[in-house]
Amino acid sequence: MLCLKGFQMRKSRAKLLVAQTANRREDFEPLKRYADIYWLDDMDEQEQARVLPLIDCVYSHGWPKALDHGKVSKMRSLRFFQAGNAGVNGMRFDLLDKKVVLCSNAGSYSEEVAEFAIGLMLAAGKSIVKFDRQLRTGVYSRQRLDDLGRQVTFFKGKTLGIVGYGGIGRSTARLAKTLGMRVMAFGRHPVRDSGVEALRGKAGLMRLLRKSDAVILAVPLTNATKGLIGKEELAAMMPGAILVNVARGEVVQKEAVYDRLVRNPAFVYATDVWWPDLTGGESFSPDLPFLELENFIGTPHSSGPNAIVTGSVAKGAVENLMRYFKGRPLRNVVDRSEYV
Amino acid sequence: MLCLKGFQMRKSRAKLLVAQTANRREDFEPLKRYADIYWLDDMDEQEQARVLPLIDCVYSHGWPKALDHGKVSKMRSLRFFQAGNAGVNGMRFDLLDKKVVLCSNAGSYSEEVAEFAIGLMLAAGKSIVKFDRQLRTGVYSRQRLDDLGRQVTFFKGKTLGIVGYGGIGRSTARLAKTLGMRVMAFGRHPVRDSGVEALRGKAGLMRLLRKSDAVILAVPLTNATKGLIGKEELAAMMPGAILVNVARGEVVQKEAVYDRLVRNPAFVYATDVWWPDLTGGESFSPDLPFLELENFIGTPHSSGPNAIVTGSVAKGAVENLMRYFKGRPLRNVVDRSEYV
Repeated sequence: MLCLKGFQMRKSRAKLLVAQTANRREDFEPLKRYADIYWLDDMDEQEQARVLPLIDCVYSHGWPKALDHGKVSKMRSLRFFQAGNAGVNGMRFDLLDKKVVLCSNAGSYSEEVAEFAIGLMLAAGKSIVKFDRQLRTGVYSRQRLDDLGRQVTFFKGKTLGIVGYGGIGRSTARLAKTLGMRVMAFGRHPVRDSGVEALRGKAGLMRLLRKSDAVILAVPLTNATKGLIGKEELAAMMPGAILVNVARGEVVQKEAVYDRLVRNPAFVYATDVWWPDLTGGESFSPDLPFLELENFIGTPHSSGPNAIVTGSVAKGAVENLMRYFKGRPLRNVVDRSEYV
Repeated sequence: MLCLKGFQMRKSRAKLLVAQTANRREDFEPLKRYADIYWLDDMDEQEQARVLPLIDCVYSHGWPKALDHGKVSKMRSLRFFQAGNAGVNGMRFDLLDKKVVLCSNAGSYSEEVAEFAIGLMLAAGKSIVKFDRQLRTGVYSRQRLDDLGRQVTFFKGKTLGIVGYGGIGRSTARLAKTLGMRVMAFGRHPVRDSGVEALRGKAGLMRLLRKSDAVILAVPLTNATKGLIGKEELAAMMPGAILVNVARGEVVQKEAVYDRLVRNPAFVYATDVWWPDLTGGESFSPDLPFLELENFIGTPHSSGPNAIVTGSVAKGAVENLMRYFKGRPLRNVVDRSEYV
């Protein structure tokens, strides 16, 4: 693990800039013992001009427009950038000097997002969203039993494939195992959890997709995972499989999954994350009519913010900033080559 | 436990009438070793007149209209009635002589219904059904964080109250505990499960309702549980609580819960079971406009039939019929005084 020991040699206190946050300001209180904290929102241009050259670390949830090239280039002392996000695909790597160490906040969302992912899987597999909608439009009639068998999945004994076996993936596996599911996990790192079949490489991914009754995507969006699930991968899945996405919209190829849904009414795509619109921001109104499909479930990126509400996002970020201030090994150091 | 040993004294083979079933006929094959099986649907009036006096046991899922007073009174040898249902509130106790032992199929639905109940709880607590509906109507906009905090519940550390601690209740508790929830259970029988706070009586029920973030109803519909949850009980619950019903519609007082939903937009009622219409059958189109409410989730009694699809309903009934044929202690003997 990487330490930034240099700070301890300095005589002045650390200077932390909070560029953008969804957390309460009180959540940063414990850091005041180690650092002076500056809030980007509070400073006018004059104050920024004075303070930015002194800043040695930044905390930011997402990347605010105000943090442009001009401002970043003024931060000549910047050595450490702590993201509030678990997925750092939205960070402006182009603006950050290579000597700046960037850490994600991976792990701080795990339990909240895993609970949400299992909720999406159950809501999809039990047809809860579809049944409620049908009842509201009055078109529902009692189903034949074999038809119900296709619409209400009993998950005990079924197989869950988890693509991306980091914090979210491991938390999801733990919940799925207690439902009595068999778990297959595809990831970069060795898997040591009992009862989980670990898979790697293209062949491993295809095996997971072929064997799984439900698949949960929990990978970061990197060069390696962008468009990971396309036509070939979707075709490998069972006709009645459930694909849950709590990663990022772009991990799934939009046209390919739309086509799969239209051609296979038993296949379900349940997603909390969406593709970007022309401005690059996540759009809840995609340019293909997913929201008219019976076998689509969408929620507006609510799994992650939930972890802000519970406080675990602030906790994870504050702990890593503490490690930086104390010169201890940092967690979640990002390998930039995966993103640029 | 009750045994019907008399059968073993008889020299003739047992005669089983399958009055109504949703199971496949093959599921009854193992019983042919012990009994002649007659299917009510297959017999004309003449054959019924010949066979019914010989019948000593009946299997029926629900109570078919064809099984009227005239036919039941012809079954002079009838000693045992095995229901396919877990809840026997729909049985015609008035037609069955008191010497006939009636067994429910309680326990055979437990895991399927528990999975469904947890699915409803998560779909409600994470606002999955509501968010999907809002996105489809295009009215969704990004929520403020505190607003999201009220709409997306993180269940770890929260309290689940289970009303009715039979098979479904225990299976539900097991799943809830692995979500990291604290569990309170209200029921008639002693609770021996670790980590479950057992409660009894009116004061116990009120304590459970006051303390629970989510409440799952899993009681049979009996004289004691009809209308169990009314205005006073609903008023005891937290304003933002979730009430899940996988028991029977009539356990909850219709007007009281409708009123509670209208007055408390944060309160959610998620139900798989419905109140009867004028014919006595379960109606998915209640006479109060529940289906227009944002804080209501309805599914068309899909949790139970799921256990027919998986085969566990047939398995449970066949096992108890085997016990009857072999003169072994019967499971799920119904106390009629709870129903009439």
